[in-house]
Amino acid sequence: MKIVIDAYGGDNAPHAIIEGVCLALKKWNDFSVILTGDETGIENELKKHEGVDTGRVSIVHAPEIITCDEKPTIAIKKKKNSSLVAAMEIMSRHEADCLISAGSTGAVLTGATLIVRRIPGVKRPALAPIMPTGTKPFLLLDCGANADCKPEYLQQFAIMGSTYMQNVMGIYNPSVALVNNGEEKSKGSELAKASYELISKTDVCFAGNCEGREIFSGKYDVIVTDGFTGNVILKEAEGFAMELFKMLKNELLSSFKSKLGAVLCKSAFKSVKKLMDYTEYGGAPLLGINGGIIKAHGSSDAKAIVSAVLQARRYVNSGVTEKIAKSIASIPAEDTVVEGL
Amino acid sequence: MKIVIDAYGGDNAPHAIIEGVCLALKKWNDFSVILTGDETGIENELKKHEGVDTGRVSIVHAPEIITCDEKPTIAIKKKKNSSLVAAMEIMSRHEADCLISAGSTGAVLTGATLIVRRIPGVKRPALAPIMPTGTKPFLLLDCGANADCKPEYLQQFAIMGSTYMQNVMGIYNPSVALVNNGEEKSKGSELAKASYELISKTDVCFAGNCEGREIFSGKYDVIVTDGFTGNVILKEAEGFAMELFKMLKNELLSSFKSKLGAVLCKSAFKSVKKLMDYTEYGGAPLLGINGGIIKAHGSSDAKAIVSAVLQARRYVNSGVTEKIAKSIASIPAEDTVVEGL
Repeated sequence: MKIVIDAYGGDNAPHAIIEGVCLALKKWNDFSVILTGDETGIENELKKHEGVDTGRVSIVHAPEIITCDEKPTIAIKKKKNSSLVAAMEIMSRHEADCLISAGSTGAVLTGATLIVRRIPGVKRPALAPIMPTGTKPFLLLDCGANADCKPEYLQQFAIMGSTYMQNVMGIYNPSVALVNNGEEKSKGSELAKASYELISKTDVCFAGNCEGREIFSGKYDVIVTDGFTGNVILKEAEGFAMELFKMLKNELLSSFKSKLGAVLCKSAFKSVKKLMDYTEYGGAPLLGINGGIIKAHGSSDAKAIVSAVLQARRYVNSGVTEKIAKSIASIPAEDTVVEGL
Repeated sequence: MKIVIDAYGGDNAPHAIIEGVCLALKKWNDFSVILTGDETGIENELKKHEGVDTGRVSIVHAPEIITCDEKPTIAIKKKKNSSLVAAMEIMSRHEADCLISAGSTGAVLTGATLIVRRIPGVKRPALAPIMPTGTKPFLLLDCGANADCKPEYLQQFAIMGSTYMQNVMGIYNPSVALVNNGEEKSKGSELAKASYELISKTDVCFAGNCEGREIFSGKYDVIVTDGFTGNVILKEAEGFAMELFKMLKNELLSSFKSKLGAVLCKSAFKSVKKLMDYTEYGGAPLLGINGGIIKAHGSSDAKAIVSAVLQARRYVNSGVTEKIAKSIASIPAEDTVVEGL
């Protein structure tokens, strides 16, 4: 198994990326890596880590870097010699089984769509991070690959998400819910109502609509929505948790008694923070692309890269790309249309 | 000033509603109330409270009740003798200045639109709750009155929200942000991009796009979005906070040390819960209706009703309905169209 890693993508690149890769290489023996980026820079970072089987590491020199400030479509087209485009090209030539990048989300999405390309029949790929809850994590898709969606995209998201959770995460018959502003079938936006109908026609275990209140309840394995709403859900959770912890800190520091209490509660606070830390779950797969693409968080540290490598190994071993292709191909054409629309 | 109150709307009606009304009557002298609902029931509840100036209370007998399970449009049309429809009719005859109901959100929205009607020129009314943050609260609109929106609705939401925060909440030149899945002007859904353009043409203090991460940062006074996204944002915050506190509780109970710590931190936890409790801020005004309509939370207790009465008094005293009418009438027709659409 070959995993190609964009060594120069992310806030902590290249040192954290290479450190994570080295840790993963020592941990598992069943894969080799191709690192893309500035050759000398990568070699210098690799030298810092001992006991790594360098026979399993190859480097593709691609010294340009795509930053988060660049317009993705322009960057992908112009910076042919960037670490990200080089990695995508390797995927498109089938010289690697999975790609990991902690670089610009927009550039990863654009690069994957333009260079690696979609699975035949897939209308839109979906960015699908695993989100934590107090009980069990769930897959949220789409989280921003497609701001404007059609019902047939959401139908495919339901199928792709369910296939991923079943095969990569080992959840038997995952329950799938649709984000809506009401529980009843008849409620919601035109998009949500039509998507409800189309998802009902598929084989996924469809649990119906899910209001905002239930998203983090741990009731569902897959939560489907358009990329605009999904992006807001994901980022709101991040911001809201941060705000809540900040408020709690302020309150705890306001009296001697609670300060003392806070010291005693420290490990409990840490556990909750860890439980809610979605970088623990690796990165977000970009489902619907013809090959594994894992978008790691921009702020990924070495530990997050190790998680992403674990996820990439599972992705490849499960054969989920082929399984998604098969599921998508099996939707009857008449089941992708909502009557009366 | 006359405030009409739906005595039979909400999970704790009529006792909590009447209790709240009695507390408010004792607290402030500048208003009288009309209570709608079953006359005997209301009289029995009123008898439980001493020291209330009954000269300021009148009752309109309307024994039917609209529940949350009923389809709003059918309920409003059929149950002419319900506490909610009676209250709406009083508003439409201008016999009261403001209405408070803790009943079914759908029925309140439908009743307000069909019976009290919109301010001339307002395309859609918006449900606009005040949301708490660690620093200052903000107005979020629309939170579910309109699942499908057009850019010109969001333009009006920006104006109405800004007018409300300035006049009712006393915020000078409130900053207005637009929910989007990216910070740059060029980012986002078609709706968000077109709304950005239209809001830019208004006089509001427009701070641009706001990603999910920033919603609860306390940076903005008014946050504008479509009713679908707003509803998800509101309910996600509610559900997420609950889930986080549940996880924290579990972790705190897992060791003797943290259990002891939790006892010492109890008042800090309570303060945070109180800070995040949006029932503290009264109800959500339904902006754009020709008269004050305050939708109190379904689970409102007496304290929440007192807050809603305070809000109703401010609403009426500020003359915000007339100010919204004036602002909406002053938008030049050519500024409600996005070029190229």
